[in-house]
Amino acid sequence: MRKIAYIDNFSEWEQSFNFSITFTVRFSETDAFGHLNNTVPFTYFEDARVAMLTAIDYEIDANSQLLPVVADIQCDFIKQVFFKETITLYTKINTIGNTSFEIHYMAKNEQREICFVGRGAIVQINKKTGRPHQLDAALIKRLNTLK
Amino acid sequence: MRKIAYIDNFSEWEQSFNFSITFTVRFSETDAFGHLNNTVPFTYFEDARVAMLTAIDYEIDANSQLLPVVADIQCDFIKQVFFKETITLYTKINTIGNTSFEIHYMAKNEQREICFVGRGAIVQINKKTGRPHQLDAALIKRLNTLK
Amino acid sequence: MRKIAYIDNFSEWEQSFNFSITFTVRFSETDAFGHLNNTVPFTYFEDARVAMLTAIDYEIDANSQLLPVVADIQCDFIKQVFFKETITLYTKINTIGNTSFEIHYMAKNEQREICFVGRGAIVQINKKTGRPHQLDAALIKRLNTLK
Amino acid sequence: MRKIAYIDNFSEWEQSFNFSITFTVRFSETDAFGHLNNTVPFTYFEDARVAMLTAIDYEIDANSQLLPVVADIQCDFIKQVFFKETITLYTKINTIGNTSFEIHYMAKNEQREICFVGRGAIVQINKKTGRPHQLDAALIKRLNTLK
Repeated sequence: MRKIAYIDNFSEWEQSFNFSITFTVRFSETDAFGHLNNTVPFTYFEDARVAMLTAIDYEIDANSQLLPVVADIQCDFIKQVFFKETITLYTKINTIGNTSFEIHYMAKNEQREICFVGRGAIVQINKKTGRPHQLDAALIKRLNTLK
Repeated sequence: MRKIAYIDNFSEWEQSFNFSITFTVRFSETDAFGHLNNTVPFTYFEDARVAMLTAIDYEIDANSQLLPVVADIQCDFIKQVFFKETITLYTKINTIGNTSFEIHYMAKNEQREICFVGRGAIVQINKKTGRPHQLDAALIKRLNTLK
Repeated sequence: MRKIAYIDNFSEWEQSFNFSITFTVRFSETDAFGHLNNTVPFTYFEDARVAMLTAIDYEIDANSQLLPVVADIQCDFIKQVFFKETITLYTKINTIGNTSFEIHYMAKNEQREICFVGRGAIVQINKKTGRPHQLDAALIKRLNTLK
Repeated sequence: MRKIAYIDNFSEWEQSFNFSITFTVRFSETDAFGHLNNTVPFTYFEDARVAMLTAIDYEIDANSQLLPVVADIQCDFIKQVFFKETITLYTKINTIGNTSFEIHYMAKNEQREICFVGRGAIVQINKKTGRPHQLDAALIKRLNTLK
C-alpha cells in the first residue's frame, strides 16, 4: 500500500482498532462510475464516529452548549467499493488535546482488504461563542478508553 | 405521456407555471445505472420550494415558532436525466387550505422535454406543539401570488 | 391517522407486511429543523426495496439488460423522526402488472408508531431501448411471494 | 488562520486561483447543528472539479476507458456555513505528476471570508485494469493552464 502520512507503521496501525460498525453500500451511494461515490465515506466516518462517542456517553446533541464539530477530515482511497458490499469501518482515538482530539478510520471489505482509510480532528466548541472549549477531565478519561 | 392523477389537463397545466430555478446534475447525484438517482428530485423539489417561498418572504427558519413542513410528496419519472444535464424546475402553488397548501413541480431538460413532475402538501406546524397552525391572511395573500 | 389514498383498510394494511429492514438515522440525514430531512425516506425506500428484491434473486445490476427503474414514488409523513432513532421499514408488493409492479412501504419507530408510509411503481425497462419490458412468468411467481 | 499543512504562504495561495463556481446551501445539506453538514463540501469539491476539468475538455465519462478517480481528499473547516449562504468555491491544479494531479480548493462566503479549504489527488485509472494510466502530453498541457 502507498505511504500515507498519518500512518507510521502500517501493520501496527491496522491492529490498533477496537471499535467498529458495518455499512452495506446503498444503491443511492453509488455513482455513474458504478462504485461508491467518493463523498460517501465521510458519511460513514460521521456515523461511525457518532456510534463510538455514544459508546462513551459523549452524545451528539444539538441542544447541548458544547458541540463536537469536525475541524478537518480526510480520506485515502485504496480499493474501489461497489454496490451491496458490506464494509466494516474501524475507528479509534489517536491523540487527545486540550479542546480537540483526533480520530483514525479504517474500512475493510468482506475479503478483509482495506478499501479506504482516514483521519480527522474533532474540536469541542461552545455553541454561543463559536470558540473551542476545553475538554474536561472526566471526558478525557473516557476518550482515553478509545485509544 | 401517461395519465398522472394530479394533472387534469396536461397542456393547460404545463403552461400554468411562473416560477422556476435551474439545476445542473452533479456527479454525486448519479447512480450505478448512470442516471440521476430517484431520490435526488426530492432534493431539487425542496430547493425550488425554498426559493419560491423565499420570493414571497416566507422564510424557512429553524428558529421560527411556525415551520413549513412536508406533509406528503411524490414524483413521477417521465424521462431519464443524466450527469451534467441542466434541469429547469418549475413550481407553483396549486391549492391553499387553512393550515396547509399544495405545491406542483415540473422539470424540463434543455430540449424542453418533461423529465419528471410532482406534487406535495406543506403544512405549517407550531414547533412547540407539533400541531398544524393556521396560515394567517397576509401569508395566504402572498401564497396566492404563486398560484 | 389521516386518510391516505392508497390505503383502504388501515388496520388490515398495517398487518399485511412480511418483509422489513431497519435503519438508524444518521446525523447527516437530519436537517436544520433537527429532524430527518424529507428527502431521506426515499433513500430508505430504495435500500429496503433492493433488500426485498434481492431476497427473491431479482438483482439490481447495472450490467443487466433489464433494469428495474422507479416509475413513480411517494411518501406521507405521519410523525417526525429524529437523529439516532431506529426505524423499521416494512415493504411488500401490492400489485403486479405486465411490465411493472407496485410496492408499499411502512416505517415504524421503536415505540411501534408509524412515522411515514409510501408507495411507488417499479417498471422493468430494457436498457438498450429504454422501453418497458415484460416481466417473465418465473419472476412474477417470485414477486407474488412478496405480496 | 491556523496553519494548514498544504498551504505554504497563505496570502499568496489565496491569490492564486483563477477558476470558481458558486453554490447556494440547500436545506437538505444542513444538519441538526443548523449548519452545513461536514460531508457536503466534498460534494461541492466534486462539482467544482468537474466544472474545472470540463472547461479544458477533460470529460468525466463513465464510458471512457480512462477515468479520473479521487485518490485522496481532505477538507479543513475554518468558519461555519449556514442555510442559504452562497459559497464561491475556487479550484486550481497545484501539481501534475505522471498518472495523477493535485487539486486545491478554497471556499469563501459572501463576506469574502474563507469557510473551508481542501486538497486532493486525482489519479487517472484504466477502467479495465483498475491501474493508474499515464496522463498524455496534450492533457498535461491543458491541465497546466489550470495551475
